[in-house]
Amino acid sequence: MIKPIDFYFDFSSPYGYFASCRIDQIANRHGRPVTWRPYLMGAVFKVTGRGPLPDQPLVGDYARHDFTRSARLHGIPFQMPARLPISAVSPSRAFYWLHDRDPEKAKALARALYSAYFVGGRDISDPEQVAVVAESFGVEHATLISAQQDPVMKQRLRQETDAALARGVFGSPFIIVDGEPFWGNDRLDQVERWLATGGW
Amino acid sequence: MIKPIDFYFDFSSPYGYFASCRIDQIANRHGRPVTWRPYLMGAVFKVTGRGPLPDQPLVGDYARHDFTRSARLHGIPFQMPARLPISAVSPSRAFYWLHDRDPEKAKALARALYSAYFVGGRDISDPEQVAVVAESFGVEHATLISAQQDPVMKQRLRQETDAALARGVFGSPFIIVDGEPFWGNDRLDQVERWLATGGW
Repeated sequence: MIKPIDFYFDFSSPYGYFASCRIDQIANRHGRPVTWRPYLMGAVFKVTGRGPLPDQPLVGDYARHDFTRSARLHGIPFQMPARLPISAVSPSRAFYWLHDRDPEKAKALARALYSAYFVGGRDISDPEQVAVVAESFGVEHATLISAQQDPVMKQRLRQETDAALARGVFGSPFIIVDGEPFWGNDRLDQVERWLATGGW
Repeated sequence: MIKPIDFYFDFSSPYGYFASCRIDQIANRHGRPVTWRPYLMGAVFKVTGRGPLPDQPLVGDYARHDFTRSARLHGIPFQMPARLPISAVSPSRAFYWLHDRDPEKAKALARALYSAYFVGGRDISDPEQVAVVAESFGVEHATLISAQQDPVMKQRLRQETDAALARGVFGSPFIIVDGEPFWGNDRLDQVERWLATGGW
């Protein structure tokens, strides 16, 4: 059986966005599918005591410089959003709602949402903006507005986030290949090597 | 004029140790010398509000796993020390004392100290252990014991640490190539690319 690899990310994370542009290509080269798992870094920060990179003295300046430098290195379109971080609650709920109906479409929606935020400068913490992006995938606007407030989807995202933490996930991106964890966009080369060789 | 690249590290940092085993080879391939600059991450933590990786929930477990995995990847000898982190004050002062007399020897001492800690399991926060390691480099034991308590060396390490922070340095390893900052052992490939191409 071909086991998928798990790709954890937060919709507000530039490094998660960069990884989202690369991870499927890498996995596909080794015949592996990727399960996308958006979750909330806010829940992580409560456990680790860390906070968003851009808010940290010294680290924030480096991170802002490195976001654009990393995008340039990988040839990924990127515009620093006016507000970073934002809440990933709405896009994450929308993702899981669509995922339960059509997993491939949900992945396309996630790509479009990341793009809307990190290229188009749209505030995807806004349920309205999320619904507009989702329309391109044939999802009715009103349906997705209510889906983002649906108690079932609220609970679903909480469970996904709890499950991520229970597995030791704490970053964005965070990738698990056959039980082996990799944290950070800079580790995608190692992810590929692990996929190719089964370890070192 | 050939400009050296700056290599900042803390003697208690496994990733600093891994980088110390690789950085000169990388720089030398591009005809560049490396200035080693030990400093104190404790001062960084006061500014950033971060703490040592091993002490952080979730992150600590990952880091401990990743230390040995990274060592294996690069073929670097590594034994997880009983105590991590330790204070880097004594080895750092010893380094600068020797550096003012013989920079190349100081670099060799730094390598030997890292090795004593991360391979030999010796507690290099202990001035006595530092002096023992330094003896192999022809430094008299008693001389180095007093050097580590010398107010001039105390002041020197404070200045080096303050200067690092003033330059925006906040990690170990942290490498600056012609003004361009790179944080982390995972970025040495990017350091090499920057040296080769002058940027991207």
